[in-house]
Amino acid sequence: MLDSERPLVGVVMGSRSDWATMSQAGEVLTELGIPYEAKVVSAHRTPERLFEYGREAEGRGLELIIAGAGGAAHLPGMLAAVSVLPILGVPVESKVLRGVDSLLSIVQMPRGIPVGTLAIGAAGAANAALLAAAILGRKYPEIRQSLVQFREAQTEAVGESPL
Amino acid sequence: MLDSERPLVGVVMGSRSDWATMSQAGEVLTELGIPYEAKVVSAHRTPERLFEYGREAEGRGLELIIAGAGGAAHLPGMLAAVSVLPILGVPVESKVLRGVDSLLSIVQMPRGIPVGTLAIGAAGAANAALLAAAILGRKYPEIRQSLVQFREAQTEAVGESPL
Amino acid sequence: MLDSERPLVGVVMGSRSDWATMSQAGEVLTELGIPYEAKVVSAHRTPERLFEYGREAEGRGLELIIAGAGGAAHLPGMLAAVSVLPILGVPVESKVLRGVDSLLSIVQMPRGIPVGTLAIGAAGAANAALLAAAILGRKYPEIRQSLVQFREAQTEAVGESPL
Amino acid sequence: MLDSERPLVGVVMGSRSDWATMSQAGEVLTELGIPYEAKVVSAHRTPERLFEYGREAEGRGLELIIAGAGGAAHLPGMLAAVSVLPILGVPVESKVLRGVDSLLSIVQMPRGIPVGTLAIGAAGAANAALLAAAILGRKYPEIRQSLVQFREAQTEAVGESPL
Amino acid sequence: MLDSERPLVGVVMGSRSDWATMSQAGEVLTELGIPYEAKVVSAHRTPERLFEYGREAEGRGLELIIAGAGGAAHLPGMLAAVSVLPILGVPVESKVLRGVDSLLSIVQMPRGIPVGTLAIGAAGAANAALLAAAILGRKYPEIRQSLVQFREAQTEAVGESPL
Amino acid sequence: MLDSERPLVGVVMGSRSDWATMSQAGEVLTELGIPYEAKVVSAHRTPERLFEYGREAEGRGLELIIAGAGGAAHLPGMLAAVSVLPILGVPVESKVLRGVDSLLSIVQMPRGIPVGTLAIGAAGAANAALLAAAILGRKYPEIRQSLVQFREAQTEAVGESPL
Amino acid sequence: MLDSERPLVGVVMGSRSDWATMSQAGEVLTELGIPYEAKVVSAHRTPERLFEYGREAEGRGLELIIAGAGGAAHLPGMLAAVSVLPILGVPVESKVLRGVDSLLSIVQMPRGIPVGTLAIGAAGAANAALLAAAILGRKYPEIRQSLVQFREAQTEAVGESPL
Amino acid sequence: MLDSERPLVGVVMGSRSDWATMSQAGEVLTELGIPYEAKVVSAHRTPERLFEYGREAEGRGLELIIAGAGGAAHLPGMLAAVSVLPILGVPVESKVLRGVDSLLSIVQMPRGIPVGTLAIGAAGAANAALLAAAILGRKYPEIRQSLVQFREAQTEAVGESPL
Repeated sequence: MLDSERPLVGVVMGSRSDWATMSQAGEVLTELGIPYEAKVVSAHRTPERLFEYGREAEGRGLELIIAGAGGAAHLPGMLAAVSVLPILGVPVESKVLRGVDSLLSIVQMPRGIPVGTLAIGAAGAANAALLAAAILGRKYPEIRQSLVQFREAQTEAVGESPL
Repeated sequence: MLDSERPLVGVVMGSRSDWATMSQAGEVLTELGIPYEAKVVSAHRTPERLFEYGREAEGRGLELIIAGAGGAAHLPGMLAAVSVLPILGVPVESKVLRGVDSLLSIVQMPRGIPVGTLAIGAAGAANAALLAAAILGRKYPEIRQSLVQFREAQTEAVGESPL
Repeated sequence: MLDSERPLVGVVMGSRSDWATMSQAGEVLTELGIPYEAKVVSAHRTPERLFEYGREAEGRGLELIIAGAGGAAHLPGMLAAVSVLPILGVPVESKVLRGVDSLLSIVQMPRGIPVGTLAIGAAGAANAALLAAAILGRKYPEIRQSLVQFREAQTEAVGESPL
Repeated sequence: MLDSERPLVGVVMGSRSDWATMSQAGEVLTELGIPYEAKVVSAHRTPERLFEYGREAEGRGLELIIAGAGGAAHLPGMLAAVSVLPILGVPVESKVLRGVDSLLSIVQMPRGIPVGTLAIGAAGAANAALLAAAILGRKYPEIRQSLVQFREAQTEAVGESPL
Repeated sequence: MLDSERPLVGVVMGSRSDWATMSQAGEVLTELGIPYEAKVVSAHRTPERLFEYGREAEGRGLELIIAGAGGAAHLPGMLAAVSVLPILGVPVESKVLRGVDSLLSIVQMPRGIPVGTLAIGAAGAANAALLAAAILGRKYPEIRQSLVQFREAQTEAVGESPL
Repeated sequence: MLDSERPLVGVVMGSRSDWATMSQAGEVLTELGIPYEAKVVSAHRTPERLFEYGREAEGRGLELIIAGAGGAAHLPGMLAAVSVLPILGVPVESKVLRGVDSLLSIVQMPRGIPVGTLAIGAAGAANAALLAAAILGRKYPEIRQSLVQFREAQTEAVGESPL
Repeated sequence: MLDSERPLVGVVMGSRSDWATMSQAGEVLTELGIPYEAKVVSAHRTPERLFEYGREAEGRGLELIIAGAGGAAHLPGMLAAVSVLPILGVPVESKVLRGVDSLLSIVQMPRGIPVGTLAIGAAGAANAALLAAAILGRKYPEIRQSLVQFREAQTEAVGESPL
Repeated sequence: MLDSERPLVGVVMGSRSDWATMSQAGEVLTELGIPYEAKVVSAHRTPERLFEYGREAEGRGLELIIAGAGGAAHLPGMLAAVSVLPILGVPVESKVLRGVDSLLSIVQMPRGIPVGTLAIGAAGAANAALLAAAILGRKYPEIRQSLVQFREAQTEAVGESPL
């Protein structure tokens, strides 16, 4: 069984207000039984913390980082620059441009340093957790099993009638 | 050592012409020593093949699928719908809209079924292979090691002077 | 006279919440006396149902399918991939990108498999029903007649003064 | 058998230069054995011809119109305004905005008058012919049969290897 | 003095709901003392009325038409196709795409038939009236004089302090 | 008859390279027999010249100004700010953003100061001349007559067959 | 110490309503102890005031101008055309296009006359003040010192937990 | 006189290929007599170098940094995060999205850390140098003088005739 005290996933975000979106990732991780930690790490206001977090993540036992940010969203890409862990990026919906800026700033990484990008907003945050489960499921059979059950329940929950 | 006869990654694409882009994924996988297979699987013209490929991938020993498609790009999302493997999506640059349609068709997946999306075009294809390495590296230490070396070489290759 | 028990049109949608939009298609079909059925068929969460629905539609007597979906909207295109019935697609307005993603995911189908796409949102849903009537009207004279009357009434209802 | 002298489909376009795109519709119609006529009808430079064409189309035996236009593309929508035939619209790729203007001018029709819109450019023109076949196939069994064969051949033509 | 009974400007719009925007044109015309008429003329739902209005406008003494429409906005361009009067187009803000579709459908007219296009929404409607005044002012000195006074008052009304 | 020595229209542009586009306006004006002058007036590099040109235009006998500019295109709007002549704006196709920046910078004028905007690029330049003719035609019957003939010839030149 | 009576920075905006956005610049300048003045200067409605303000700014002792405007935002670029002071531009969020028009109208200045552009809306206004501080800090050590303290406080204020 | 051995401006870019764009900044700086250094500093491939460069810049005597990058362009914003020097950002035209991604990734910085952003591409690079001159000109009178001369020459070079 997974040690619930030892987080496998780091959920980080550029500002406290991003938690409204990123908490969706947290909820799905919890539902799937994947231990995680959540931190505010601002690429722009706390660059030292960003570097330190990215460099130490693997050594601290994290297997994967989910990073959410909005606007000129540099957090996922900079974490990817300083770690060899898989980095998943969630474009937080920005106030003015609805997350188009966040999306392009995260997904259009240059050759050499990838960020696996999810949809803009809360759906993307939940899906980052599900993709994390698919990834961790290759190594941890119990996570694969949780994901299979989640997916089956999800399929069953889709009623046939729209009314 | 990895068995070079047994592919860990499936690289699939919507049409033969997408290979011009997706071969970048193949080259990086080869450079990192990750065995893969490459197939044309058209979501629209060969839907049976798509379903079959997606459902059988895990059983055949694949750990991850990289799917590239352009325009109304449904291949990555439909593979994600029929498999619990991690699916990485590469928006192939489309002739008319330069891949904006491909990008939105791949990244904007609804809550429940994720696709980890990379940049539009060849850079995204190469990065899909690097993200695959980061993911597989959690389970296969030799792949992690290959990736570390690739990244170090990449850092060293960046000269300081632009001239 | 048309058999009101035997639906000619299938109105399908990716999630129950799309009914807020797609019910406009239902209302216009009813007004025109065209029997239809309405179903939730999620391309991503219920891919089996999607395949089955698409493959069996013609055999069950449907003449045409109207499919509505939002975001990375794969439902209309995948139905078109598994059926030779005419498929009309309605881009449901998405929360974040207002349906631009839905529109491009539906309309930008590659050569070989077409979806006849209508406007984003409720106007598009109503228009899908009117286009269905124009199509069915070629074979069923009473539907052509209903459409002619609908159009005449619509023209008369446009007052001349804006006040 | 269809009377090859009596066109079932009108393929119209805003200017002679659009034929470079719209000829793809003509080729597919020919391949499917669907008789058609091709005309230049400019909404802006020949509005009388547009009105006349739209009003007389049904009486002349046409079952469906495929209309292609670029930029502020008014041809498909205005034909839909003066006919109860199904109108399919092809956004021709415009020089400056790559057909985004054409697409929005065609697909965003207001409630009441629909245009079934295909992809921008040559793929959309070919697909308009295929959608026309699906529509006509409901009434003309031989056209349905042609389409089934076309689709089967298309599926078979998709090779499995990208190389 | 201008005959207040004889309208010089026709203010037309695609639907009654556009009056919320187009009434701004009416108010400015009134303020400048320019007689006008306001009509609902739907390009799509009342194409006959559109043709008739456009063809008869000059003969009825109108000097200029201001046409507002939203979405796939064909009204201004079709009026321009059937009249040699100057046509000014106002892109009405559409519900889904905020008027980007309206703007492109109006401004991107092909070579040969121009529409002088104003800003999206109410500001554009007011400005259409001001541009009409500038145009009419070349022929009617009293309108030029009204416009000069309007502009002077407008300049004076701009306070220097933002507080 | 118009005095060919006395220009009625000023055709101005932000840089010499814009003449490749704006010469289309010149050609159509010439074809219609409308005397014009052409000048380079850069809003940004020659602001004094801009102010002077705008303020003196009416006094020098100009009836209308056609202004073309690209990128952050301020020339048409600033001329409109310092003159009560009608100002028509042509968005010159910019190298990077294809004229979308030029279009928005010209058309989105705030309430109070209008610019009648034409299509992006050469078609817009030609159309600016045609709209100028429609405007001047209200005051100068011979220009109206030229325009009528131009339009008739244009209609006749549209062949019926695309081949 | 800086003379609080002598403004170093001019904060100007196109209309009084822009103060809702631009007051953020004022607040940050005050917090940093940088004296400023705030004025309404409309490029379009008060072009004389614009010219005069731009030409006299340096002589009056201003070191830098922050200019905010929305829509076809010409104020920052025109100030840059008539002054050699550094001009920072803030795209005010426009009602219809959310500031995309403002952004492109400000940032896409042609070669020769630059505007240093900040983010759309209030964040951009605050950041204009911070960039002004960085610029003035090169010459006025006390401003550099204020900025260092502001930045340190900002870093410390970023809590680590999102909850 | 400025010491030509001691650079005042750092011109940095994400990859060697960006020099094709950024050399425009170098040329203008040279023309204005402003000593500078040029370096390749990749935010993603050489994050250590980025941090070090940003932190040491002020201490090494630089007064300002011009940073150019394309795609998910994080270089300017991350330099701004680790330095209190003014940072000017140049969005390099990206292959696929023409620099729209670069622009949004640079300009949409969150409140707290500003980047003064210039136009996309070579014009923006040249303008970054001119804005640098305006900024440095406040402290170094000879640079102000160079800029005044540059601007005068530029104004004189604008010929009046487009031919």
